[in-house]
Amino acid sequence: MLSLMVVFCMARSPIGQTGTVHSLLKNVRALLGDSAVLDELTAAHGADSGSLRVEPTDTQGVSAVLRACAEAEVAVVPEGGGSGLVGGAGPQPFPHVLLSTRRLQTLEHRSGEPAARVGAGVTLAELERSLAPTAWRYGIDFGARDQATLGGTITTNAGGSGVFRFGTTRQQVLGLEYVLADGTVVSDLSPLMKDNTGLSLQDLIIGSEGILAIVTQASIRLWPRPEHRATVLAGFPDLDAALQASRVAARSVPIEAIEFMDGACLSAVAQHTSVAHPLEGHGAALLLESAHDDQTVALAALHDWIDATSPSATAAATDRADRARLWAFREGIVPAITARSSFPLLKFDLTLPQESLAGFLDWCTTQFGDAAWQFGHAADGNVHLNLTDVAQGERGAISDTVYRQVCALSGSVSAEHGIGRYKVAALAQQRTSAELSLMRGIKQVFDPKGILNPG
Amino acid sequence: MLSLMVVFCMARSPIGQTGTVHSLLKNVRALLGDSAVLDELTAAHGADSGSLRVEPTDTQGVSAVLRACAEAEVAVVPEGGGSGLVGGAGPQPFPHVLLSTRRLQTLEHRSGEPAARVGAGVTLAELERSLAPTAWRYGIDFGARDQATLGGTITTNAGGSGVFRFGTTRQQVLGLEYVLADGTVVSDLSPLMKDNTGLSLQDLIIGSEGILAIVTQASIRLWPRPEHRATVLAGFPDLDAALQASRVAARSVPIEAIEFMDGACLSAVAQHTSVAHPLEGHGAALLLESAHDDQTVALAALHDWIDATSPSATAAATDRADRARLWAFREGIVPAITARSSFPLLKFDLTLPQESLAGFLDWCTTQFGDAAWQFGHAADGNVHLNLTDVAQGERGAISDTVYRQVCALSGSVSAEHGIGRYKVAALAQQRTSAELSLMRGIKQVFDPKGILNPG
Repeated sequence: MLSLMVVFCMARSPIGQTGTVHSLLKNVRALLGDSAVLDELTAAHGADSGSLRVEPTDTQGVSAVLRACAEAEVAVVPEGGGSGLVGGAGPQPFPHVLLSTRRLQTLEHRSGEPAARVGAGVTLAELERSLAPTAWRYGIDFGARDQATLGGTITTNAGGSGVFRFGTTRQQVLGLEYVLADGTVVSDLSPLMKDNTGLSLQDLIIGSEGILAIVTQASIRLWPRPEHRATVLAGFPDLDAALQASRVAARSVPIEAIEFMDGACLSAVAQHTSVAHPLEGHGAALLLESAHDDQTVALAALHDWIDATSPSATAAATDRADRARLWAFREGIVPAITARSSFPLLKFDLTLPQESLAGFLDWCTTQFGDAAWQFGHAADGNVHLNLTDVAQGERGAISDTVYRQVCALSGSVSAEHGIGRYKVAALAQQRTSAELSLMRGIKQVFDPKGILNPG
Repeated sequence: MLSLMVVFCMARSPIGQTGTVHSLLKNVRALLGDSAVLDELTAAHGADSGSLRVEPTDTQGVSAVLRACAEAEVAVVPEGGGSGLVGGAGPQPFPHVLLSTRRLQTLEHRSGEPAARVGAGVTLAELERSLAPTAWRYGIDFGARDQATLGGTITTNAGGSGVFRFGTTRQQVLGLEYVLADGTVVSDLSPLMKDNTGLSLQDLIIGSEGILAIVTQASIRLWPRPEHRATVLAGFPDLDAALQASRVAARSVPIEAIEFMDGACLSAVAQHTSVAHPLEGHGAALLLESAHDDQTVALAALHDWIDATSPSATAAATDRADRARLWAFREGIVPAITARSSFPLLKFDLTLPQESLAGFLDWCTTQFGDAAWQFGHAADGNVHLNLTDVAQGERGAISDTVYRQVCALSGSVSAEHGIGRYKVAALAQQRTSAELSLMRGIKQVFDPKGILNPG
């Protein structure tokens, strides 16, 4: 959903003149009908920007819009569910067509098959609801499931809590349908787990943040749905102890989620939601979930882990509603700390190697004190550092400091949410000039006019 | 390991003149020392071909060879373990440097880490031996493990028997080091499970068959090593019944391998190895293996499956040597039928959608009768069809017939072994002109002189 285009800037004649966009609007209305052109965003972008927003209902509609835009040389910015954190799909600084894939709502699942064919506009929550009665489930899940669409998660190669067990979104996509900048539809939706024919264009487009093509549909792999789940929230004196305990859990196959959070996050959620704090006074906590067809096995995995790591307190649940109450301590962190901050949260999405993770979190505490809220996915080293009360003028310098520290520790400045517009400078820190040059060359191959997602 | 270059042909001045290769040989000897230039292959390729074979011992050596070759405009053909099936690494029709990665033998694994850093020349068997004392194992395994190198398996995105559980090689690679055609080394070996920074060049290079870069090292993810394994060989009246039963097994998480073979394959192995046939008279068999830390759970998975599918006979084992005897009925098929064929086997590596798999195997039997030997990985629809007694003159037409049938059933002509030189025509059948044009553009970005793996 995002944009690498400051890095990928192409020589290009000025595009998106008001007149052009207005005549394009007329063409698109003629192609798709009024209902697909939801808003003429002129007001939002200033009187002369002439941008518009379209919501095609099928792949042919996406193709028609892209063909029209390519002919008129108007930029196209794709939009998924809007849950991204890096400023990809927000207002852009020039006239463009905002192309929403939200109405691409196909969903085919043949009974018994470990694969489904799903439109880019289906949210993760809608996908889960439709698979719930079957023996299968999707491998990606995270807190923004009601908002995040399959297309958006593919475009950003989203992660979530089960990555150490099932891999990222890239590992879930068997086949892909996408539309190139000139409107050409490439559709390879065969659900084959093994298919090595030519270069993997599909894997290049996954995670490309909308700069190479617009994803319209995917064949995704499904995993067996375990019948039973058990969840435990376990207290530790500090993050270091919690992370050590998390590494024991990563070896136990029934354990599918290992989330960490500092004690301040727990307290913030308890206060915000007015529920009793289950682990009062602990410096850190882990939330573990195990899943298995046999409830004894699911529970045994958690008991074995508790025996091996001796957390100082635990709260456990097997029932759906009780598990949700425990998960709320992890998924409720962002709303709870948003409510406390006098400025928008300064959010980071970082991965650290296991051996540097505890040291990095210590560094954050020293550097930012009470402003730092630390939580994330322990098993894959993915830290969602959030800072409260950071004024606009300080955000750039603080981000630079964090990204420099992450790079120094061989981590990644973008675990799950991509580069977007917020992290373009950091990308240049993390990738060599040879890599950036190859990326620019590939962008030129896919989109010689630089139509897709400039920004 | 292979070559897409008939498809990717570039305008290029004639390269590899005898004089050029000989002076290159001198330069490479000076750079790497005599020991790295193993054979001057002049004899093998005809007196005037002037090819040579080099075996650098580190990444800098690979870089030096590529830089020298790029300057001299001499083609480079990479060579891994030599277990490929599509004619990638065999003798080439023009002068070139054969660059073996076999001596890139680094192997670092920090105790307790679910990742390792491994040189391209390490074989899957060597990797397994070094991990055997640890709590971790690699996710890819197949019969050619003694010969296949990590570099070769990455270059071809190899599969094997555990793909339905762990994914293909692409899903095992966390970080990659590779050398571009001009000698530039790109090294991103951080073992991060989540890292979305820029376009995924790494995923483009995995499976690219050596036409974009030479892989020298990788950070691979490791999986928990279950303490117990149980194997069962189960007889069914025919392939259709066996495949139906395989689909039940795919849902049981402890089951990690579901291999199928027709009755003739079983008989051939029994005769070739002079062991008693455990399932005499059965038209087809499945070999299942389950793995778990708890032996009861591993065995229960197999018993549950037997109860659910009622195979007409079974042979089971939990002990290492007994399991190997059962696996020999699957892994011994190729040597057993090679011994029966008056011509080299005509081998296919195909994936079919689950719903077309049984129908395709029926078609093969009708089409080729006793010459057809059918086996493969049931859970991911990967058929290793082998034909005995096919004379040279008939091979092209028969291959075309098979590939056409596979494409008509929405399958893939290359599951695990890539396109190589044998399947270039079939690639054009399976990919659209838009896709082929993008692939050509990408090849041009990575290798403008067309040095890497032409053929």
